Amino acid sequence: MRLRNKPWAKDRLESYPQYVVAKPESYKGNWTEVFGNDQPIHIEIGTGKGRFITEMAKANPHINYIGIEVYKSVIVIALDRLIEEDLPNLRLMNVNAVELQNYFAKGDVDQVYLNFSDPWPKTRHEKRRLTYKTFLSIYENILVDNGEIHFKTDNQGLFEFSLRSFSEYGMLLKYVSLDLHNSSYEGNIMTEYEEKFSSKGFRIYRCEVQFQKK
Amino acid sequence: MRLRNKPWAKDRLESYPQYVVAKPESYKGNWTEVFGNDQPIHIEIGTGKGRFITEMAKANPHINYIGIEVYKSVIVIALDRLIEEDLPNLRLMNVNAVELQNYFAKGDVDQVYLNFSDPWPKTRHEKRRLTYKTFLSIYENILVDNGEIHFKTDNQGLFEFSLRSFSEYGMLLKYVSLDLHNSSYEGNIMTEYEEKFSSKGFRIYRCEVQFQKK
Ligand SMILES: C[S@@+](CC[C@H](N)C(=O)[O-])C[C@H]1O[C@@H](n2cnc3c(N)ncnc32)[C@H](O)[C@@H]1O
Ligand SMILES: C[S@@+](CC[C@H](N)C(=O)[O-])C[C@H]1O[C@@H](n2cnc3c(N)ncnc32)[C@H](O)[C@@H]1O
Repeated sequence: MRLRNKPWAKDRLESYPQYVVAKPESYKGNWTEVFGNDQPIHIEIGTGKGRFITEMAKANPHINYIGIEVYKSVIVIALDRLIEEDLPNLRLMNVNAVELQNYFAKGDVDQVYLNFSDPWPKTRHEKRRLTYKTFLSIYENILVDNGEIHFKTDNQGLFEFSLRSFSEYGMLLKYVSLDLHNSSYEGNIMTEYEEKFSSKGFRIYRCEVQFQKK
Repeated sequence: MRLRNKPWAKDRLESYPQYVVAKPESYKGNWTEVFGNDQPIHIEIGTGKGRFITEMAKANPHINYIGIEVYKSVIVIALDRLIEEDLPNLRLMNVNAVELQNYFAKGDVDQVYLNFSDPWPKTRHEKRRLTYKTFLSIYENILVDNGEIHFKTDNQGLFEFSLRSFSEYGMLLKYVSLDLHNSSYEGNIMTEYEEKFSSKGFRIYRCEVQFQKK
């Protein structure tokens, strides 16, 4: 997602260091310093306008959350939401997923959420999909042993690709729903994209996969 | 599938030993004797009325096929089809999948097809599903190393369960389609159930999974 350019977004993000982590590289291996406690840390990659991660943080005060989004024009909207809610267990980070190993050491992160990641439908773009093996390797390198990825999408092709990619990487499929909104799954928190696409009648796919200790 | 009882079915099956393998236990480790050649052997478990396996045998003369079905009242219909087509590379076997290790030695079988297996939707019946781990173990014990299962179904719950079961067993997901009839997959041969359910607008799910050499 890339919204209309907002030249003021950079300043605004920098004005709220209590919400938007500045210099995240300085906390590598030391994120308890950011949150002031050692609760588990769950990150969402491609957090967009921040609805999911904010609701998750409200619902689960004993987990720390970080919403990661590459576009300033988008993450400022998540910032507005966080300013309003003022949640002690939520931070935002304006970085690209490819750099995550610069900011997190092995074991810093307890769980990764991917929601409605860009599908990159053309085969020649498959390396850009956030479930491509090079990204899985990045997540594995920052997660605890047996860490999990929880993934939702409305995009059938991306879901099929991702199931194969997880399997080829040797991950365990712990949960899968091929129609989340007509399933027995409870406590689902919708993202912005999820609300939009499910209201148009699209199926939502969801899975939980786990890295296997090597 | 259990059709109206046909008391004459047993006699009819026994009258065609050239099509319906009698005493399959005597060929364990020695199936070249049945087919008179050493072409690869693909089996379908729960072959029903035999449309899929007959069409496969016609389309692929260099593969030997065996259709396995537990009910006599059903397999006699597959026999009628085979009598009409008279295919040298197709046999039928009236046995239960749980007994397969009595008839096949490790490596006798090159590929397993499961099509529209009974879903057994109640959790307390999950052990009866043909993709439950005890069945996967049976297939592994008769297949070549890195042998594959090719699985189709219209049943969402069974497909979800099976994807998890394959993953827990350590199998590799090589192919998955969440809507086969609207996919780029070519050369699909429909089963009786597939024709019935796809014509009612149901999605067809399909995957190919591979056992990993231990
Ligand atoms: C399709 S949107 C979905 C947003 C939100 N998760 C939702 O479900 O409503 C995907 C988001 O991921 C972000 N994104 C894509 N690639 C990224 C990357 N490499 N690092 C961080 N964010 C990324 C995009 O900018 C976009 O905001
Ligand atoms: C729902 S029907 C599908 C038939 C066919 N494959 C199709 O797609 O049209 C499932 C078939 O599997 C057979 N079956 C179920 N359990 C079996 C077992 N343990 N061994 C052999 N056949 C079995 C049933 O008798 C039935 O004919």
